[in-house]
Formats: sequence, C-alpha cells, structure tokens
Amino acid sequence: MLSQKHNSFNPRNFVFGFQGQTPLFPRIFGHEAAGVVESVGEGVSDLEVGDHVLPVFTGECGDCRHCRSDVSNMCDLLRINPVRGVMLADGQSRFSINGEPVNHFLGTSTFSEYTVVHSGCVAKINPLAPLDKVCILSCGVSTGLGATLNVAKPERGSSVAVFGLGAVGLAAAEGARIAGASRIIGVDRSSKRFEEAKKFGVTDFVNTSEHDRPIQEVIAEMTNGGVDRSVECTGNIDNMISAFECVHDGWGVAVLVGVPSKDAVFMTKPINVLNERTLKGTFFGNYKPRTDLPSVVDMYMNKQLELEKFITHRIPFSEINKAFEYMVKGEGLRCIISMED
Amino acid sequence: MLSQKHNSFNPRNFVFGFQGQTPLFPRIFGHEAAGVVESVGEGVSDLEVGDHVLPVFTGECGDCRHCRSDVSNMCDLLRINPVRGVMLADGQSRFSINGEPVNHFLGTSTFSEYTVVHSGCVAKINPLAPLDKVCILSCGVSTGLGATLNVAKPERGSSVAVFGLGAVGLAAAEGARIAGASRIIGVDRSSKRFEEAKKFGVTDFVNTSEHDRPIQEVIAEMTNGGVDRSVECTGNIDNMISAFECVHDGWGVAVLVGVPSKDAVFMTKPINVLNERTLKGTFFGNYKPRTDLPSVVDMYMNKQLELEKFITHRIPFSEINKAFEYMVKGEGLRCIISMED
Repeated sequence: MLSQKHNSFNPRNFVFGFQGQTPLFPRIFGHEAAGVVESVGEGVSDLEVGDHVLPVFTGECGDCRHCRSDVSNMCDLLRINPVRGVMLADGQSRFSINGEPVNHFLGTSTFSEYTVVHSGCVAKINPLAPLDKVCILSCGVSTGLGATLNVAKPERGSSVAVFGLGAVGLAAAEGARIAGASRIIGVDRSSKRFEEAKKFGVTDFVNTSEHDRPIQEVIAEMTNGGVDRSVECTGNIDNMISAFECVHDGWGVAVLVGVPSKDAVFMTKPINVLNERTLKGTFFGNYKPRTDLPSVVDMYMNKQLELEKFITHRIPFSEINKAFEYMVKGEGLRCIISMED
Repeated sequence: MLSQKHNSFNPRNFVFGFQGQTPLFPRIFGHEAAGVVESVGEGVSDLEVGDHVLPVFTGECGDCRHCRSDVSNMCDLLRINPVRGVMLADGQSRFSINGEPVNHFLGTSTFSEYTVVHSGCVAKINPLAPLDKVCILSCGVSTGLGATLNVAKPERGSSVAVFGLGAVGLAAAEGARIAGASRIIGVDRSSKRFEEAKKFGVTDFVNTSEHDRPIQEVIAEMTNGGVDRSVECTGNIDNMISAFECVHDGWGVAVLVGVPSKDAVFMTKPINVLNERTLKGTFFGNYKPRTDLPSVVDMYMNKQLELEKFITHRIPFSEINKAFEYMVKGEGLRCIISMED
C-alpha cells in the first residue's frame, strides 16, 4: 500500500478513462503521482516500508519477453490496461464505499490518500528527491523525454521538430535540449504556447494554422530538406503524417507518441520510406518503469533535467475541480495536487 | 574507361528504363557488372589502370551531407538518376553510332565492351575476386543482403520474414542466414520458388495465394505474435503493409526494399506504430558504393557469403536475347553475360 503524497493532474486520466471504452464506475482516477510505501504484501522482496516510489500506469514483471528485450517496455503481464478495475492477482478491488467495491484505474488510482498497487508498477526512487516535483515523471514528462532520448536519439548539433507543445511535447523538446540539439522547431496551432516553449529549448516556431500547405513542406524549406528528428505529441493524424514526412531522407527518424482517434489511418507514399526515413512509435518513452525511472529522477537531481518549468499550478486535493478548469481552459502544463491539505 | 568483363542480367534495367518515364533512345542498358580500369581521366587519383572494379548505378562523392552521414548512402551528387543519359561533368555522352550520340544508362551502361563511368560510381575491389561471380554484387544481391545486414540487423537466433523470393529477396534471406537468424520465413505467391529458397536459409514458407486473410495474421499466428524482423522485396503495396504489420510489437523492425507503383499508398493504423514497431526503408541495402562494396566482395572471398547459388545461367553477350526469355518465363535468378565470346 502506498500513501500518496502528491499527484499531478494529467488529462490522460480522462482520455484513458473514456475514449472508446465502456465507462467503469465507480472508479478512483489518478495515475501520475509520487508516494511512500506504507506496507508490502506477501512475496514482495524488493520494496520496503518507507521507500519513496512512483506508481506507474504500466508495469514491468521482469520476466516476460518484453521485459527481457533490450528495447521494449510493453510488459505482457502488466502493460497498461484501461478497462481493468481490479487487482491482477485476485480480480478484486481494494477500494470500497459503504461495502460496495470501487474500481481501480490504470493499476494506480492515485487520487486517493492511500492506494494498493502491483509491486511491478512501482519504481523505487532516490529518497532525497522532492515528491512534489518528481511526481510528474510517472507519466507525461517521461513519455516525451524518453521519446526523444531513448527513441529519436538526436545527435549533438542536430535539428528536431516537436509537434504539440503541451507537457508531453515540451518534455520531448527538453530531451532535445539535453541531447544538445542546436535547432528545436516547435509546431503547434496555438501561438500562445510559443513563448513558454522557449524555456524548453525551442528555437523556432511553426504555427500550423498560419499555413495552407502541408507543414512538412514548410519544415523542409526551413531546414534545407528536412529535420534530423521529429517527435509527434498531438495524436492528430495529419500531424503524424507531417512528422514523418518532414524528416530528412537518408537519416531522418520520426517518433510517434500521441494517441490518435481509433479510426485514424496513417498514410504516406512508400517512396518516403524507401528514401531511408525511419518511422518509430513509442509508449511511455520506451522507459521500463522499474528499471529506468530511478535514473530519470537522478537526471533531475543532477540538474540535467529541469522539472520546475513544467509545474504551473499547485492546489490541495480539496480543490481538485480547479484542475479541471485549468485543463478545460488550456491553462498551464502540470498542476500539482497535494493530498495533505 | 572500363572494359566490361562480365555483366549480370537484372530486370531492373527495364524497370528503371521505362517505368513512368519518357523513354530515352538510343541508349546502352546494363548496370550490374564487373570490369577492369582501362584508363583514368584527369583528376582521378584513387583508381589506376588495371584495377578490378564494380561499376555502380548510384555513387558516392564522399563530400555531401549524405556521404558524410554514418547511415545514408543517398549521395546528393551521384544518386541514381534514371533520366540522365549523359556524363555529369560535361553533359555529353561518350557513346556514338554513325556520329550520333547514344545515351548512357544509370551512369554505367554495362551492356558494352567498354564504358565510361564517373569515378564516384566505381568500387575498387580485391583483384583476386572472380569477376564472373562478384559482378552480381553491383546491384540486386547487395541490395537484399544490405537490407538485412545493415538495416534490419536481426540478432542471432531471431526470426525474419522475407517477402518475395527473387534474387533480391533471396539475398535478404542470405543476410538473415549469415546473421544467424534461426527462423527465416519466405513469403511468395509462387510455390516453385520455395524449393530453391531452402539453399538460402529459408526454413518456413508462406504462399500468399493460399490464404484468404491478411498475411500478417498468418505470420503472427506462426510466430507467437510476429517476427523480429521483416524485409519486403516485392514492391507490392499489400506486401509492404503486411511486412510492417507482421513484425512483433515492442521490438519488431520492418525494412522496405521493393519499389512500388507510383500511385501506391502505404496505410496502417497508427497503433501499429505506437506499439513500438519500426518501419525503415533502404536503397541499395544502405551500402555506400565505394566505401562498403569492397568488404562485401571480401565476405564472398571469406566464404561467408555464397554467391554461386544466385547464378543460374551463363551466356555469351551475342545471345543476350536468351536472358530476356529467362526473365519473361520467370526462370532462374541471375544470368551472367560474358562480354568475351
């Protein structure tokens, strides 16, 4: 059992909860958080009471083909499952209200003072790390950061286009900044994102609403044929296609992160592939939650990774509805919710 | 100037010559060959009279962004150009008949006892290598071999699907065999290819004409979720899509080699990408012609790479029309044409 110290308000709670699925109620949402271990169940040997941890919406059993692969993080046993509302081991919920069970959410249910999580979905981190900051590493920021650092892997001095300047896209830009990219092109349909994006290393802006031709053409023109890397963080299918076609032939790599609507189809002329472009997709930035997240926390502790700039709001849990308002208005990046009023 | 000792009959001569282009006549075809340097032009310092060489249909200037890239072989200056019929330097042809110029083809025009080639389109090879065998390395066999060894990069013990069991696909299978793949699935619509394919390490066969559901489903079922790598060598768009979708999520890599019709569109659901599959394209197996081909010749000399099994016919140049007949009937893999009767 974990006590949740800090949550971060991540719109994905609702994407995962509702998109194309039968709603499962009642349910405790929340999946981007940090906490402290209060107790451990039978057979758990790698966690102790008092450990500081990040609960993660997808897990790492350590034993399946994906966990044994050098590159995959899509654990067969504990991979994200948005429709499961119970613990894996016994098919039961650990929450109830008036004797009636309440469903879990993404194996984490962190909008709660206490929660119960599979040990494979918990990353033990440096106990000196401030939980009210590193909590944002348990989903969106790691997703964007890892997409760049683990998958796109831009070289020092290279150019990177980032589609979508929300928290995930800005984390992808932060990854490009850390990797030493010399040109980071932010692509968004809202100009108000651009000023903020400069803090994340973004050097150039393309406002998609200001162009009436394909954005890949605009970017190719700006970059003498295309960027070295691109990272797509919007889930919009046109952006996905642009992100692929805007990378340079011969060596360009495009990485898809954003989750599209279920009817979307990715389409491109095969010559765009044959001309030595690479298209990759990533889930949670290819981080294996238990193995890799501790080192991401350490990147913050070593001042390589700057997390403060993602945190635009702080509220107590009692005022969580304010976080919904910020989301609806498109205000800010991450709102930290303290579980202790 | 090169004297052509041996040519190999490659159907691509005609694909390149006619597909979607204004025919350029008169023209000397031929691009897969081996020869000996007879003379060198001004400023050529890296080739000498008597050098044994492979002329290559695409080149390596050594100086452009592609040549300086670790991964690209799509030289800006000397990249394949099927519509140019003259030398790059002066825009003139070196061939004539009755005083009228005759066009070059793919910078090589090897169906000729002598030809003139840009020095950037000539790979100097081990003089001990038999020209009547290594001539097949100057296009198709290197294309398939490199697609596997340089781009798909299967690990020892892994599974590889190869779409299309012509010479390029069998060279891709040969690459998988050399890399130590334990399962090589050959996919073709003709069963008669299957027996021959065993010589190239192919262990399993899928006959596309025997299935009425997507081949990616057939392969996923055979392999517990998908192959580790696939290489598409037909250019058929349905095969391209199958080749991508048949690789395993988490780590699968699909490599496109075959050239499609110009109206074809590659289509897939984005989730197939997001689930950590990689799609790559390659041109000439990502080999840089001058830098890398000598080592491919050495792979043959070291008995790693088996070339004899690709050579199914031999004829003198005077009987070249027989090679057309073999092609039309779909007989054999490579027909070596000796320029010396």
